[in-house]
Amino acid sequence: MQKIIATKRIAETKFINLVEDVYTDNDGKEHRWVKAQRPNGQHAAVIVPMLRINSTPYLIVTKEFRVPLNGYEFGFPAGLIDPGENPTSTAVRELREETGYKVDKILEVSPLVFNSPGLTDEGVYLVYVEVSQKPEETNLQGSEEIVTYIMGQEGIKTLLDDSSKLFGAKAWLIFKQFVKHGEVI
Amino acid sequence: MQKIIATKRIAETKFINLVEDVYTDNDGKEHRWVKAQRPNGQHAAVIVPMLRINSTPYLIVTKEFRVPLNGYEFGFPAGLIDPGENPTSTAVRELREETGYKVDKILEVSPLVFNSPGLTDEGVYLVYVEVSQKPEETNLQGSEEIVTYIMGQEGIKTLLDDSSKLFGAKAWLIFKQFVKHGEVI
Repeated sequence: MQKIIATKRIAETKFINLVEDVYTDNDGKEHRWVKAQRPNGQHAAVIVPMLRINSTPYLIVTKEFRVPLNGYEFGFPAGLIDPGENPTSTAVRELREETGYKVDKILEVSPLVFNSPGLTDEGVYLVYVEVSQKPEETNLQGSEEIVTYIMGQEGIKTLLDDSSKLFGAKAWLIFKQFVKHGEVI
Repeated sequence: MQKIIATKRIAETKFINLVEDVYTDNDGKEHRWVKAQRPNGQHAAVIVPMLRINSTPYLIVTKEFRVPLNGYEFGFPAGLIDPGENPTSTAVRELREETGYKVDKILEVSPLVFNSPGLTDEGVYLVYVEVSQKPEETNLQGSEEIVTYIMGQEGIKTLLDDSSKLFGAKAWLIFKQFVKHGEVI
């Protein structure tokens, strides 16, 4: 059984640290691995907001500038789970702040799943929600700039077919399932 | 339109760097954002291997020690796209090395999609393949230790229901779709 026997922080910034783990393999031999880590091990909630209008299913989709990509990503509202919050309360807050929509019903919450287990211990909870139709004013933080779309199956199919657009991996998988099946859970 | 105007490497290791971008918002105001980046901007291929036995669908699932999680992750074979490779050739090579299975047919290749666009520019191609039934010897690198399972819908449902297990986010979404629909594309 492999396991970590020592850990050392090798670089520190406000939102990401680099941490080197020393681990042993099954023969007891030592190896090293560097990971990116959020300070305090904060995880995130990704909200998958669904809406029905005359029984036709829609998704609330966000377009957001992502500095690491130097481009605009199509995906879902998301945010770090602050101290005192849980995945569901973060989902309700972030959805309201980023899109103006209010959660009507929590449909499902995933376990903590990991974005890129070779690179980072950052995890997310996927929170599937139903929203009510009328959005209110958004409340974006600092330099956030988020545009919200209501998209049906045809719209998302067209979006996926546009090779100039950037997608998060989780959103791409959910969009694909939605185009094919008209649902996401 | 937001954009990056300057970039500075602030920490460097063999497999991950920290890079600080200076970007301007829509009012021309400057902000800073730190991202984790693979040296040379290498991206990865994640292989989703499907198999039919007497027309029943199965997935090839891997269990692998992930140092950043200090635990064993259930997911799919994956690897960085080396110089001179493309997503498909990486998929064929990694599937063979990590599981012993050979690709019979490439079914679909996703665009480059991003694992965690707020944290890193690391992207992956999802390569959906059909495999032939008989695996050969694996060829694991260094400290890699990967166990391979052939799992049908029932097996994956049981796995997803086990709260002690760790999952990659992409694998969790694909597993969920497979349990519900018996297919993943």
